[in-house]
Amino acid sequence: MADEVLFEFLHMEIVSYVQRSAKKDEKENIASKLESMGFRVGQRMIERFTRETPRFSTELDIIKFVCKDFWSGAFKKQVDNLRTNHQGVYVLQDNKFKLLVPMSAGKQYLEAAPRYLAFTCGLIRGALSNLGMNCVVTAEVSTMPACKFQIMIQRS
Amino acid sequence: MADEVLFEFLHMEIVSYVQRSAKKDEKENIASKLESMGFRVGQRMIERFTRETPRFSTELDIIKFVCKDFWSGAFKKQVDNLRTNHQGVYVLQDNKFKLLVPMSAGKQYLEAAPRYLAFTCGLIRGALSNLGMNCVVTAEVSTMPACKFQIMIQRS
Repeated sequence: MADEVLFEFLHMEIVSYVQRSAKKDEKENIASKLESMGFRVGQRMIERFTRETPRFSTELDIIKFVCKDFWSGAFKKQVDNLRTNHQGVYVLQDNKFKLLVPMSAGKQYLEAAPRYLAFTCGLIRGALSNLGMNCVVTAEVSTMPACKFQIMIQRS
Repeated sequence: MADEVLFEFLHMEIVSYVQRSAKKDEKENIASKLESMGFRVGQRMIERFTRETPRFSTELDIIKFVCKDFWSGAFKKQVDNLRTNHQGVYVLQDNKFKLLVPMSAGKQYLEAAPRYLAFTCGLIRGALSNLGMNCVVTAEVSTMPACKFQIMIQRS
């Protein structure tokens, strides 16, 4: 549990550092900066994770790998629910998302939640990108600490 | 190992983000910004770590706790060597410091090493500060990935 704490606390610091260091005219870019960091981390992580994994045969296999192995590695639990429309949209639901847990008492921080999800959106996008899937990842929170990540595959 | 990787990669991203976002006139502040982040993370971490620990009786007990429990929690190994002059100076040596390992092939990154140690200097300072010890923490690298952290207790 200790190492998890280190990551969690460092993540909080980064969110606040990026907020503080952003110039006035780039307040909207905070999420995008955090997303980029997540993207690069996701790319490197998935390389480690798939080093000894056989090649995936379908898109769904890749998404399942992210839901199970990758999520467990990053957040010490699997995604709770995966849904898809079988047309390139996948929704990953985590009922107790680790990075939201510390701020999920009451509704007062609901507004701040998106900033705490941007890194993870990037993390997913980076991981999938390295496996050859270009996508857009967005997050949605209704009741903290539950949240949903929506992956939309971009066909080229 | 997976979660460690997440922390390590996030740490790398932060070092590079702080470098990029620093204005020209504050290049020297990069280490100090990273140190401050580490300080705040260290403060929060030590609270978790000592929640069920009996009160420490001596300064040396606190330092030993940092070398063993705290270091294991953060870096998955203990400090390899602890030395002290018994006058408020402690030197913690880690022969394979995790945040230096990825860049320790050859000497080419030796110059960049201090930036990868600043966060950890702050981490130690924050942890000790929360246990009532004010100190200055500096780091020194001779042969990567080994490094030494020097703690100088500030008596008031």
